Amino acid sequence: MSERTLEGIGVTPLSGVGTVVWYDQEVELSEPPAPEDVDTDAEHDRFSNALGTAREELQAERDRTAEEVGEDEAEIFDAHLQFLDDPQITGAVEDAIDEGLPAEHAIQEGFEGAIEQLEAAGGRMAERADDLRDIRDRLLRIATDAERLDLSELPEGTVLLAEMLTPSDTAQLDPDRVAGFATAKGGRTSHAAIFARSIGIPAVVGVGEDLLDIEADAEVVVDGDAGNVMVDPDEETRERAAEGRDVEIRTDRVETADGQPVEVAANIGTAAELEGAVAQGADAVGLFRTEFLFLDRETPPDEDEQLETYVEALDAFPEGRVVVRTLDIGGDKPIPYVEAEEEDNPFLGTRGIRRSLGPDAELFRTQLRALLRAGAEGDGDLAVMFPMVATVEEVDRSLEIVEDVASELDEAEIDYAVPELGVMIETPAAVFMGEQLAERLDFFSIGTNDLTQYVMAASRQNEAVADLHNPRDPAVLRAIDQAVDAAHAGDAWIGMCGEMAGDPELTELLLGLGLDELSMSAVTIPDVKANVVETDTAEAREFAERTLASETKAQVSELLDSR
Amino acid sequence: MSERTLEGIGVTPLSGVGTVVWYDQEVELSEPPAPEDVDTDAEHDRFSNALGTAREELQAERDRTAEEVGEDEAEIFDAHLQFLDDPQITGAVEDAIDEGLPAEHAIQEGFEGAIEQLEAAGGRMAERADDLRDIRDRLLRIATDAERLDLSELPEGTVLLAEMLTPSDTAQLDPDRVAGFATAKGGRTSHAAIFARSIGIPAVVGVGEDLLDIEADAEVVVDGDAGNVMVDPDEETRERAAEGRDVEIRTDRVETADGQPVEVAANIGTAAELEGAVAQGADAVGLFRTEFLFLDRETPPDEDEQLETYVEALDAFPEGRVVVRTLDIGGDKPIPYVEAEEEDNPFLGTRGIRRSLGPDAELFRTQLRALLRAGAEGDGDLAVMFPMVATVEEVDRSLEIVEDVASELDEAEIDYAVPELGVMIETPAAVFMGEQLAERLDFFSIGTNDLTQYVMAASRQNEAVADLHNPRDPAVLRAIDQAVDAAHAGDAWIGMCGEMAGDPELTELLLGLGLDELSMSAVTIPDVKANVVETDTAEAREFAERTLASETKAQVSELLDSR
Repeated sequence: MSERTLEGIGVTPLSGVGTVVWYDQEVELSEPPAPEDVDTDAEHDRFSNALGTAREELQAERDRTAEEVGEDEAEIFDAHLQFLDDPQITGAVEDAIDEGLPAEHAIQEGFEGAIEQLEAAGGRMAERADDLRDIRDRLLRIATDAERLDLSELPEGTVLLAEMLTPSDTAQLDPDRVAGFATAKGGRTSHAAIFARSIGIPAVVGVGEDLLDIEADAEVVVDGDAGNVMVDPDEETRERAAEGRDVEIRTDRVETADGQPVEVAANIGTAAELEGAVAQGADAVGLFRTEFLFLDRETPPDEDEQLETYVEALDAFPEGRVVVRTLDIGGDKPIPYVEAEEEDNPFLGTRGIRRSLGPDAELFRTQLRALLRAGAEGDGDLAVMFPMVATVEEVDRSLEIVEDVASELDEAEIDYAVPELGVMIETPAAVFMGEQLAERLDFFSIGTNDLTQYVMAASRQNEAVADLHNPRDPAVLRAIDQAVDAAHAGDAWIGMCGEMAGDPELTELLLGLGLDELSMSAVTIPDVKANVVETDTAEAREFAERTLASETKAQVSELLDSR
Repeated sequence: MSERTLEGIGVTPLSGVGTVVWYDQEVELSEPPAPEDVDTDAEHDRFSNALGTAREELQAERDRTAEEVGEDEAEIFDAHLQFLDDPQITGAVEDAIDEGLPAEHAIQEGFEGAIEQLEAAGGRMAERADDLRDIRDRLLRIATDAERLDLSELPEGTVLLAEMLTPSDTAQLDPDRVAGFATAKGGRTSHAAIFARSIGIPAVVGVGEDLLDIEADAEVVVDGDAGNVMVDPDEETRERAAEGRDVEIRTDRVETADGQPVEVAANIGTAAELEGAVAQGADAVGLFRTEFLFLDRETPPDEDEQLETYVEALDAFPEGRVVVRTLDIGGDKPIPYVEAEEEDNPFLGTRGIRRSLGPDAELFRTQLRALLRAGAEGDGDLAVMFPMVATVEEVDRSLEIVEDVASELDEAEIDYAVPELGVMIETPAAVFMGEQLAERLDFFSIGTNDLTQYVMAASRQNEAVADLHNPRDPAVLRAIDQAVDAAHAGDAWIGMCGEMAGDPELTELLLGLGLDELSMSAVTIPDVKANVVETDTAEAREFAERTLASETKAQVSELLDSR
C-alpha cells in the first residue's frame, strides 16, 4: 500500500510513528432474557453497584483533570455526578428492572425517556442530553464488564485516534508510551491541544471525517509540525518521524543576529513542569499559573505551602526570573472554598483581579505574603503579575495591598523582598490605558488568547467564531503594538505569555513589534530560540511595520509566508 | 408629615407626582379541607384550566414583550412555558390532588419538591428554581381567582413601586396613567430603564431596601432627573414635579454657540415611535433597530412588508436621514424561523453581521433588497449600517452583497437607490481597524453599550461587574477618540447611538471628541439640543483633551462636575 496523507491542524512541533488504537466506547446489548428468568433483586444490586463504581470513576477523573488540565475541564464531571444522584433518572431504571429487565437493558431503557425529553427541549437542555448519554454509556460499560480502554496503559508506540478527546482523556496519556494522537474534531487552541503541547505529545487535530476511515492496527505517522497524518507511511517518512526533532536545544540565553538579547521563557502550571522547562532551555518562567495550587482541594493552600512551591520554582532558575501570576479564576470555575455565582457570560464577568480585589481578598493577601517571603528566600528573581486588569484603580489597589502586606511582614520581622510587579495585558482597556499602567509597574505580559477574544469579541471556546478568534488578525497585532509602545513609554518591559508567543512562525514579527520576552510551552522553546538567533532587529521592525499596515489576516498570512 | 428623600438612579429626565400602588403578587392559602370533602375530579379540572390560562397569559406576555421590549426579555417566558409542559412537575401536582388536596394546595405542594431539588443543585439550576416559583405563583393566583394587578389599567396618577419590574411589566405601563415608577433594584442600563426612557415615564431604579418601607397610597414624587424619590413631598416639591420639564423642544436643527451644525437624532425600534421622535424635535433617525420587525412571528417579514416600514420611516423625516441597522440578533435570541445554537458566552458569539454573512444570509439579502427599494421610494435620505463588525473582510463581503442585490434589482428593472453605508463601532477590533473601515464606508455609529462591554471585558448584564461597565471610563473615552480620528482620517462621518449619546451631562465632551451626530431615546433630545447650543467647539475640544488624559473614571467625573 502506498502512503496516504490527511491534513489537519498541527498542535506540537513533534512527529511520531506508531500503530493505531481507536478510542471508542460503544457497548452493544444482546436481546434481554424473558422477565421470569430475571432475578430482580440481583439486578437491583448490579445497578446499584454500577452506580457506585461510576461515582468512583467520575470522582477520580474529576480530580485528575482538575489537577493536570484545569478546573474548567473538570467541571463536566460535576454535572455527571449530579445526574447519578437524580432520582428521576435512577427511578426510571429501577422501574424497568422491576418490570423484569436485566440491569444493562434497564439502564438503556431508563435513560431513553430523559434523553428524549432533554433533546426535545432544545438549546442548553439538549446539551445535557449528551451528558446523559455519556453517563448511560459509562453505566453500560460497567454493568456489562466491557473492557475499558485505559488511556494511561496504552501499549508503547500507540498512535491514538479518536473522533474527539476530552482534556481529561488527554491528561491520562503517557508521553513515553503514546507516539502521538490525532482527532477528527478540535482546534489549535482547544485545551486538549494546549495540554498535548505542554506534555510534548505529537498531535494533529481537526483532521475531519476522513480520519474515521483509518483502520485499527494501521501504521501511521503523526506530524504535529506540518499538521499531517500519514497512513501506511513510506520508509522515508517513517524514518524521518522516528528520528524526532531536528532542532538544537540551547540552554544558554540567546540574542538576535544583531546582538539584541531576548528572553525565552516557559509557561508552567505546576512545579512538576520546572524540570522539563529547564531541559528545553528556558531562560526563565514567564508565566507560573497558580490556579493548580488552589484547585481540587477542600481548603486553600496555606502561606507556608505556597511559599515552598514558589521557592522551588525560584531555585530551579537561580540565574533567571520567575513570573508568578496571582490566582486567576473566573465565575465559571467553582472551587469548594470560594463563593462564585454562575454568570451568563463568564468571560465578561468576575475573573482574575476582580475576584482578588473582591470576594477572594483573603486568598489574595495570603498569596502575596507567601510571594513576598519567597522573593527573599528563593535563588531566582521573583516577579508577580495580576490577571484581567482593566483599570488604573485596580492596579493602585493591588499595589496598596502589596505595600500593606510588606509592612505586616516588617512588623512581624519576617524576611521578605518586594518583587517586580506587573500585569497581564488581556483586556482592550489595559491597552488603551497602557502608558498610565506602565508608569506604575515594572512589566507587562500579553495574554494573547484573552486579548484576541476581547478585541475580536469572539469567544475562544466557540467553534462558530473560531475564524474570528485569530491572533494574526491585524486588529490584534495593532493592539499588541499599542501595548508595546505604551509599556516602553512608561518605562516597563513587556513580554508575551499567550499561545502566540510559542508559534515559531511569528518570532520575527513579535520581535519586530518590540517584545522583550517570549514565554511559551516548554516544548516549543528550542524552535523559537532557533528563530531568535536568525532574526535581524532592523529587518524585523520593518517587517512588523508592513504587517501592521495589513487590512486582513489573509494579508498578514501572506506576509508571514513570504519570509 | 415632612418630606423624606430616598436616593436612587434616575433613568429619565422627567418628574412625576402621584399615589403609591405596590406591585406585589403573593397569594396566601388557608388550611385545606379534609380529603373526603374534596371533589378530586373537579380539582383536576381546576388545575387543568389553570394550566391553560397560564399558558395563554404567558404566550400573550411573551408576544407583547418581544414586540415592545425585545426578544432577549421575551425569552424568560419560553422557559416558563416549557415548565408548564413538564410532566415531572404537573405529575406531582396531580398526585397531590389524587391524595385529596384542592388544586391550589396541590400546586403549592407539587412544586415544592422540584423547587427544593433545583435549589440544592446550586448555580444555574438554582436560577431555574426562581422560574418555578414564578410559575407556581401564577398558577396559585389563577386557581384562587386572586385579583391581578393589571399594569395597563392602573388609576391615573399612579406611582408604581416594586422590588423590581421586569421589562414585560414595564412594557404594560401606560404613560398617560402612570406618573412614574421606582424600584428597589435595577441599574441605569437595565432594559426596563431603557424602556422607561423610550416611552417617557419618570423612573428611578436601584433605590434599595428603604423603598420597601413606603406605604401604599402615600403621595410621592419620582424625580428621574435627580434620581430621587420624595415621600410626603412638600408643596413646593410637588408643584415642581407636577409642572413637568422646563426644557424647550426645538424642532429645527441646532448648532453649537460657534456655529458648528450637530445632528441630534432619535433611536427607534418600531415605526410607532416615529411620531414621538418628530414631536421631541429629532432631526433624523440615527438608529432604527430592525429586530422588532422580525421577532414574534412564525415567518420572516417579506420584502414588501419591510419596504413599507422603511418607507414609512423615510417619509416621517422628509428633510432628514434615517439610519437603518440590519438585523442584529445573537445566539441568545431565538426566532422561530432562524436556527441558532445556544452559546456559553453569547456576547462573544454569533451576533449581528456574523449571522447575516452566515446562517441568515437569505434574510440579509431580502432586507437589503427592501432597503435599496425604500431608498428610491421614501422621502428622507436612507443610510444602512451593519452591526458587530470586527474585520475589513466582513465589510468587503457586505458591500459585495449590496452590489449584487443592486444588479439583481437592475436586471429586474425595479427602482432602487444605494444608500449611505456604514457600520456600528462596537468591537475593539473595529476601533483598531477604523481607518481601513472608514475608507470603504460613508459613516460609523458608535454603540457605547457593547463597545464598553468589550473594551472593559465586563458584561452589560452582570451586576457584579456593573462598576467596570461604565462608558465614562477613560479607556472607553480613548477608544471613542481613536474611532473618531479613524473615521475622519478615512473621510467618514461618525455618530453615536449608544445610551451615552443621550446623557446631557456628556454632550460637551462628546462634541469635543469630534462626533458629528448624536442619536438617543427621543425623550432626551430636548435636553441634548439645549446643551449643544451652549457648547463652544474650541472649549469642548480642550475639555475633551483634558478628559482623555484622565487616569480613572473618578477623574473623568470630577472634570464633568466642574463644568
